[in-house]
Amino acid sequence: MTDPHAAEHIIKSYDTELSRLLDEIARMGLLAREQLADASVAVAERDSELAARVVERDNAIDALEHEVSHDVLRLLALRQPIARDLREVLAALRIAADIERIGDYAANVAKRGIALNQSAPVTPAAALPRLAEVAGRMLADVLDAYRRHDAAAALEVWERDEQLDQLYTALFRELLTYMMEDPRNITPCTHLLFMAKNIERIGDHATNIAENVYFLVHARPLAEARRKGDLTSDVTPPVQGHRR
Amino acid sequence: MTDPHAAEHIIKSYDTELSRLLDEIARMGLLAREQLADASVAVAERDSELAARVVERDNAIDALEHEVSHDVLRLLALRQPIARDLREVLAALRIAADIERIGDYAANVAKRGIALNQSAPVTPAAALPRLAEVAGRMLADVLDAYRRHDAAAALEVWERDEQLDQLYTALFRELLTYMMEDPRNITPCTHLLFMAKNIERIGDHATNIAENVYFLVHARPLAEARRKGDLTSDVTPPVQGHRR
Repeated sequence: MTDPHAAEHIIKSYDTELSRLLDEIARMGLLAREQLADASVAVAERDSELAARVVERDNAIDALEHEVSHDVLRLLALRQPIARDLREVLAALRIAADIERIGDYAANVAKRGIALNQSAPVTPAAALPRLAEVAGRMLADVLDAYRRHDAAAALEVWERDEQLDQLYTALFRELLTYMMEDPRNITPCTHLLFMAKNIERIGDHATNIAENVYFLVHARPLAEARRKGDLTSDVTPPVQGHRR
Repeated sequence: MTDPHAAEHIIKSYDTELSRLLDEIARMGLLAREQLADASVAVAERDSELAARVVERDNAIDALEHEVSHDVLRLLALRQPIARDLREVLAALRIAADIERIGDYAANVAKRGIALNQSAPVTPAAALPRLAEVAGRMLADVLDAYRRHDAAAALEVWERDEQLDQLYTALFRELLTYMMEDPRNITPCTHLLFMAKNIERIGDHATNIAENVYFLVHARPLAEARRKGDLTSDVTPPVQGHRR
């Protein structure tokens, strides 16, 4: 390091590599949002071809996650970041993993949408796009909070997950009621149960991302324990034959 | 570094820290296995008290994962490992995350078991402990492969996931049939659907761990693409009124 420009050069290329990493994640996030939106349209319009395209495109997100993992490994090995820089790199790794899972869930919604189109339409399917819209907005907002390193905005998304859980629980109960009314509803409603569950899980992963943004900014975990996710594990049999 | 023992000292304490990390993960793994086994017994014996204890004990696994994350961050910052040492540390981070999720799924099986006990027993519940046994053996074997850094053993577990998927799909179809036979079966069978799905997901996380062991040993991803997990997204309505 006799060259006075050498240190600056290392710093500059660290920044370049980090911003490449963040670009990859931004691209992953955008793809995941599109996948969820398209899966939702495919269900709403019973469009099996669109659904099949969503299933196929999941590979692109997986490939980007591999790139991110590879870049993180290289960045850690060559740059050996510490403190905030290290948190930045590890947050990138975790957030990429969450987006990859979100992509999987969106693809699974689409895939079950294809199976759903084998049965006659059932009324509660109409509630699914609303669920997807709420989850999609959480995802868009938390990715924006990440881009801006805005822990307050991330926290706000984290809190919004409760709404999604409530919508999901309401749909879960509605689906049970439909299944009890007519056995022909059972197979399509079972797919809808899992599709709704997938979207509820997308919300959980959006809150994971929010927790990572919080940790990245504040260097301490978002500790506040809140009951997470699925409230349907407590659901007991409804009164039968009554639509509520 | 004029002291000739200084370098040796650093190496020794890196090994000490790494082995502490691996001990924490081994402890997490053991807890997760016990949680799954107890959740399964709770379902088989309709023991809601045991199920409640499983739900409660999930915190212990979460706390261990926080410890692992913290230790990984410290190890990366202070020791700045490269090459195999770096892969070792990142594998620890990912494997801990997988075990944490496995713990969540086991706790969710237990929680739904409590709800299941609100309804009269249904026959297909008997198939669940078999599913849990297969998943539990995958988990035990992959953790053992990790401890021994045995990529071949990890690969063997990875391949076994297909059996679990087939058992899950068979149970899924059986549950649909039961639901169609009697609307009173719908709520308990819905819980069983999600419980079976949770166990199928535990198998997926065991295969994730296997992939990490493989990468740790071979420094290249287990690339072979195999269709992963849930085959039920294709299930279309069965012929009604016929038990198969």
